[in-house]
Amino acid sequence: MTTVALPRAAFVDTQIDMAHGAGGKASRRLVEGLIVPLVGGVESLNDAACLQAGDMRLAVTTDSFVVRPLRFPGGSIGDLAVNGTVNDLAVSGAVPLALVCSLIVEAGLPTDLLRAELQAIGDAARRAGVRIAGGDTKVVEHGKADGLYITTTGIGTVDPRASLSATAVVPGDVVLITGCIGDHGITVLLARGDIDLSSSLQSDTRSVLPFADALLDAAGSDVKWMRDPTRGGLATSLNELARDCGFGIVLEEDAVPVRDEVRGACELLGLDPLHIANEGQLVAIVAERVADRALQALRRVPGGDAAARVGRIELAPVRTVLATASYGGTRVVDMLVGDPLPRIC
Amino acid sequence: MTTVALPRAAFVDTQIDMAHGAGGKASRRLVEGLIVPLVGGVESLNDAACLQAGDMRLAVTTDSFVVRPLRFPGGSIGDLAVNGTVNDLAVSGAVPLALVCSLIVEAGLPTDLLRAELQAIGDAARRAGVRIAGGDTKVVEHGKADGLYITTTGIGTVDPRASLSATAVVPGDVVLITGCIGDHGITVLLARGDIDLSSSLQSDTRSVLPFADALLDAAGSDVKWMRDPTRGGLATSLNELARDCGFGIVLEEDAVPVRDEVRGACELLGLDPLHIANEGQLVAIVAERVADRALQALRRVPGGDAAARVGRIELAPVRTVLATASYGGTRVVDMLVGDPLPRIC
Repeated sequence: MTTVALPRAAFVDTQIDMAHGAGGKASRRLVEGLIVPLVGGVESLNDAACLQAGDMRLAVTTDSFVVRPLRFPGGSIGDLAVNGTVNDLAVSGAVPLALVCSLIVEAGLPTDLLRAELQAIGDAARRAGVRIAGGDTKVVEHGKADGLYITTTGIGTVDPRASLSATAVVPGDVVLITGCIGDHGITVLLARGDIDLSSSLQSDTRSVLPFADALLDAAGSDVKWMRDPTRGGLATSLNELARDCGFGIVLEEDAVPVRDEVRGACELLGLDPLHIANEGQLVAIVAERVADRALQALRRVPGGDAAARVGRIELAPVRTVLATASYGGTRVVDMLVGDPLPRIC
Repeated sequence: MTTVALPRAAFVDTQIDMAHGAGGKASRRLVEGLIVPLVGGVESLNDAACLQAGDMRLAVTTDSFVVRPLRFPGGSIGDLAVNGTVNDLAVSGAVPLALVCSLIVEAGLPTDLLRAELQAIGDAARRAGVRIAGGDTKVVEHGKADGLYITTTGIGTVDPRASLSATAVVPGDVVLITGCIGDHGITVLLARGDIDLSSSLQSDTRSVLPFADALLDAAGSDVKWMRDPTRGGLATSLNELARDCGFGIVLEEDAVPVRDEVRGACELLGLDPLHIANEGQLVAIVAERVADRALQALRRVPGGDAAARVGRIELAPVRTVLATASYGGTRVVDMLVGDPLPRIC
């Protein structure tokens, strides 16, 4: 059998647009077609990088947070800046050693607003059990930012129980998710006030470390792959996996937990809940033989009662995500295209 | 003798202004009065944080780069984003393992401009001998950034030859600098075109790793303290040291290498070269007995021919930096106050 290298997407756009930051197809083209060839070494859009330091295996991940508005029901940019980075480490099978945070502040930002976000950073770090070890602050003129941007980098040590790789995923493996999808994206969208919908929806921002820990504890190396489906949603994360493992993924659409309010907002706006960002969910691929045990372990984690088995890895169609519905329909679920929800994290 | 704890600066400003990002007194008040109490663990404005991973000692540092304009004689934001972070590791006595870079791009940025900066990042990393291990890209709407901001985090291992601490500094120790000061700050200022001065001046942006290596090689644990005097210039770095070690620092002003063009621009603008940012200089405190050897070692490094012995640690005046000139005058050199040169890095 001959392995055919996948063609890398070329980058031919003449300027950078919002879609290039949305985490979907355009982001992938930017990374693969421009960033990696010039900078080198950036292996993937989402994974933490793995470094060897002596006999320690370290995981390192960095993310800029530019969410608008800065505060929304259930959280704020400060929460995301901690939880988002902690979660990138968690799904890489790493235990955080420390975070560092760099702030870009727009001149004129009220101190009270900055104070609230620093408090949110401190509180989220304490809740996640991680230390903020350092930072930096730059200020730009009024009109050269949007209040506050935060870049957080996390350094962790790779959990010896973890043995994660898309190449370990095989047909028959099971897709698990820790809870309802789309809460964060729709909450932020509604918080902007552009759409006249009232809702009690809250962002799901939280550390998924307890979920990663429970999974590794229950299933060890039978946990093949984990991801926190943020920008681009569950659909984009699973499409990346389908591409990386070479198999198909079939989602049972009815099994994917989605709140009525998220479903309703998506129908109104012509969006697919599978494309909506999450900030506190973990999607995992586990071996069939441990799937029930792993699901029970997730459900025992506080906040994990909606965890569900939502799909399976299949031999075909290769590199494709399908969703099947109970009424019998099957559709191809693509990566996010364009940027229907800009600056969601 | 009773040790009196220094009072921490309170933060009473009601909004964030450019000066809070300038690296001087206002920055210190923001960090000590607001960030550290709320976030915790951020020990200093400039140092890399030290983490223990197994029996490895790691250094971690993060910085956001918001320089305006993006390109200037001798360098660009991409160069600074690599060299600045490499230098923070170098002066912490660490050898870089890897960098990660996170981009915040303003929608509408021409791809050619982004391509040039990615190339600059890649080239600077190769020159410094470090790997870019990962990254992130966010895009914000036109008018919500200023072309491109880059946040770079560096992870390094602490060099076993290094034993750096402000508390090891004692009267009699010598201040060394690797070259001319103020080139970067004045170059960027002139590149903005607000001032009608023509000049062949170039930014000094470069990795100072070879200087740190040469010093540690020549003087080992007799190298007491190193810093790269960026925002706030040499004056601010030395004031921080004076405060942290509790002694006085006396600079021989005539011995500090300053190009005529930098001196001229400073006179015209009412600025002090000691307050102007550098991006490729290292200031070190070494024991008197190794000072000549250490200086020779610096001068042998390519680009180190202007390295100079510029001052001494004195018992008094405590926590103060003085500059003495050959004509006999002595003046107190304070930290940078306000932000005469915003967005210099």
